[in-house]
Amino acid sequence: MSPQQRRSGLGTNQEAVRRHNLGTLLRHVHGAGQISRAELTSLMGLNRSTIAALVGELETLGISERATPVGGVRQGAGRPSAGVAIAAEGPFVIAVDLGVDRAVVARIGLGGRILQRAQAPVHSDGEAWQVGASVAALIRRVVADAPAAAPLVGIGISVPGLVRRSDGLIRLAPNLEWHDVSFGGIVLAALGLDVPVQLANDADLGALAEHIRGAGVGVDDLIYVSGNVGVGAGVIAGGHRLEGAGGYAGEIGHLRFNPEGRPCHCGNRGCWETEVGAHAIAEAIHCPADKVAQLDEVLDGFAQPSRELRETGTALGHGLASIVNTFNPRTVVLGGYFRSLYRLVGAEISAGLADRALPAPLESVTLAMPGLGSDSPLLGAAEIALEPLFVDPVAALGSALVDVRGRLAG
Amino acid sequence: MSPQQRRSGLGTNQEAVRRHNLGTLLRHVHGAGQISRAELTSLMGLNRSTIAALVGELETLGISERATPVGGVRQGAGRPSAGVAIAAEGPFVIAVDLGVDRAVVARIGLGGRILQRAQAPVHSDGEAWQVGASVAALIRRVVADAPAAAPLVGIGISVPGLVRRSDGLIRLAPNLEWHDVSFGGIVLAALGLDVPVQLANDADLGALAEHIRGAGVGVDDLIYVSGNVGVGAGVIAGGHRLEGAGGYAGEIGHLRFNPEGRPCHCGNRGCWETEVGAHAIAEAIHCPADKVAQLDEVLDGFAQPSRELRETGTALGHGLASIVNTFNPRTVVLGGYFRSLYRLVGAEISAGLADRALPAPLESVTLAMPGLGSDSPLLGAAEIALEPLFVDPVAALGSALVDVRGRLAG
Ligand SMILES: [Zn+2]
Ligand SMILES: [Zn+2]
Repeated sequence: MSPQQRRSGLGTNQEAVRRHNLGTLLRHVHGAGQISRAELTSLMGLNRSTIAALVGELETLGISERATPVGGVRQGAGRPSAGVAIAAEGPFVIAVDLGVDRAVVARIGLGGRILQRAQAPVHSDGEAWQVGASVAALIRRVVADAPAAAPLVGIGISVPGLVRRSDGLIRLAPNLEWHDVSFGGIVLAALGLDVPVQLANDADLGALAEHIRGAGVGVDDLIYVSGNVGVGAGVIAGGHRLEGAGGYAGEIGHLRFNPEGRPCHCGNRGCWETEVGAHAIAEAIHCPADKVAQLDEVLDGFAQPSRELRETGTALGHGLASIVNTFNPRTVVLGGYFRSLYRLVGAEISAGLADRALPAPLESVTLAMPGLGSDSPLLGAAEIALEPLFVDPVAALGSALVDVRGRLAG
Repeated sequence: MSPQQRRSGLGTNQEAVRRHNLGTLLRHVHGAGQISRAELTSLMGLNRSTIAALVGELETLGISERATPVGGVRQGAGRPSAGVAIAAEGPFVIAVDLGVDRAVVARIGLGGRILQRAQAPVHSDGEAWQVGASVAALIRRVVADAPAAAPLVGIGISVPGLVRRSDGLIRLAPNLEWHDVSFGGIVLAALGLDVPVQLANDADLGALAEHIRGAGVGVDDLIYVSGNVGVGAGVIAGGHRLEGAGGYAGEIGHLRFNPEGRPCHCGNRGCWETEVGAHAIAEAIHCPADKVAQLDEVLDGFAQPSRELRETGTALGHGLASIVNTFNPRTVVLGGYFRSLYRLVGAEISAGLADRALPAPLESVTLAMPGLGSDSPLLGAAEIALEPLFVDPVAALGSALVDVRGRLAG
């Protein structure tokens, strides 16, 4: 069904339109954090009384609350319009950033507010159920102070690997050596809870979060290139997430780079990842193998770039040229340890890119640091867990859990 | 503005909704060629009387006409519903497929019907104004038999190069040696007409046409890989055209393939295009340089693949692996001379792809021949010229020209 068909189909069902509008209004509140009714009226093209009714319903649902006017200035000489803010005890989600060496878990509210966070090491040779138990323990910690009335909408998990969109199965997490792991189910079983759980690739989630509230706000063509032991990309194209047929798009780490290069875990030789992946960089700078997963911290310890790091910067730029030619992005966000690398050898990265990209796509692209620091995948995981609220807040709250702390204690 | 905002905004303006619905209905008629009112009712989720009113308006505008019922069977035992067909003297567009060695021009109606076509050689060292004059002469030929009442909605031009989306400027057409050529304006000046003209990259248009009525109908993640002297791709991702920030996305011909390889016109060495582009293949099979632009015909003359062609097939498969890893498409359509190559060395192409792609994206991808033969870019050019009719038929007809034959004769 095309978007056109869906749009027209809504016209036959007033209740569906109302819930859709309610979700869209909530998406605006979520994006802005706090917003005036006048701004909502203008953004949504609905009249003031319709907006007032929708805002009233969000308040009744416990999602939003009245705020001190903030947008009144925009109305000129008139009365400032009432503000809409996110309710302090409103719905929240659990976001999990599963790394190769550590898991970060946070309780996150609307507006992308991190309310509580915790982290613990993950052992790369750990079984999935052991990692699941660690994540469940972290989840118990971050809900410890959650208000009893606040509903848990769902759990979002960022994965350093390929995730099947249809059911969230982790098809491959190379640096955890996981194949076909149903990690969402493992975490829910460890918690003894039944809530919606969403999984997606870390770079895809990094791109999503940077697009919503990071370096890519208002940028419709954005690529988040993630250095997280392996190398991957998340792509926003024309304002939409590029997911591919199964959810696996963005595996740019295996772009052919040097046919004479090192062997890659994918079975090929000389993939881009074997040149700019964490293991390659660690080897070049004589970083011990057990520090590879903390490559960003190791790089942050460098005062001056070594010759090897400058060469890595050039190789990163050359690979980015292929990506710029392929996607013609406006912004390329360098995430993970590429952030630290960009600080050290940004000039080499830019020069490598300029040397190899076609002039037309090169002229409009900007390299950027993540606006959300190292939290982009975590905040992206929150976004996919919150998404049902923006499609139909009433239905999403219907499947949410209240008194999560009590349930987990019981 | 997000699609949600646009959708909601329409709710405030009944006239905008009606025109939008009229355009959407026309898009369905265009896609199907002929369709019953019952099918339209079901596809659009509008009630029968609304559909009847919209169909009546299309008839009044001279766009559609009543047809012998075709979809009646679907209604079960009831009366067959009246059919909607494309009017014989309805609106049309001019489509131009500008190749490196020849231009093909066609008069094309709704439903993608090629009503008249003509072609002429193009000299690759020709100036843009000379090529524009040839194209204008071909346009005069294809409108020679157009009904005087049929309105010309616009001209669409497929270009073997990079086209700036904002204004259609040809930034680079490497094999024509054009830089920053305003070819749309040149053609209009040669015709002495003022109608909307749209330009886009040939592979992008191939992907669009294959998605609408070729090998990619119903396939939301599709890549059209074009061998047209140079190598490029058009991408449909999640049902949307991947255009990039400026319109330049898809330049996969310059993916790094072999750093020790041949020099490329882009300034690099060993781009994929220098291994599987027409010049490389021609050299491998000792095809004379003046036949490079007809490589498809040369390849069609082979009864058995030579060793060189089998190696080219493997290299094509290896490059496709990078594309499959990057985009995770459902279908990869092999256009241009890759079509002929696929016939000869399809096994090597598939084996090269399977050897290098990641298992997850590999398992759901299919290689396909274009459903539209060599006409995909031409039909894609028609689609971009027709597009205004599907956004707002009333406005599009308002800027259309009638009696084009008479105007061009005058
Ligand atoms: Zn690899
Ligand atoms: Zn090149």
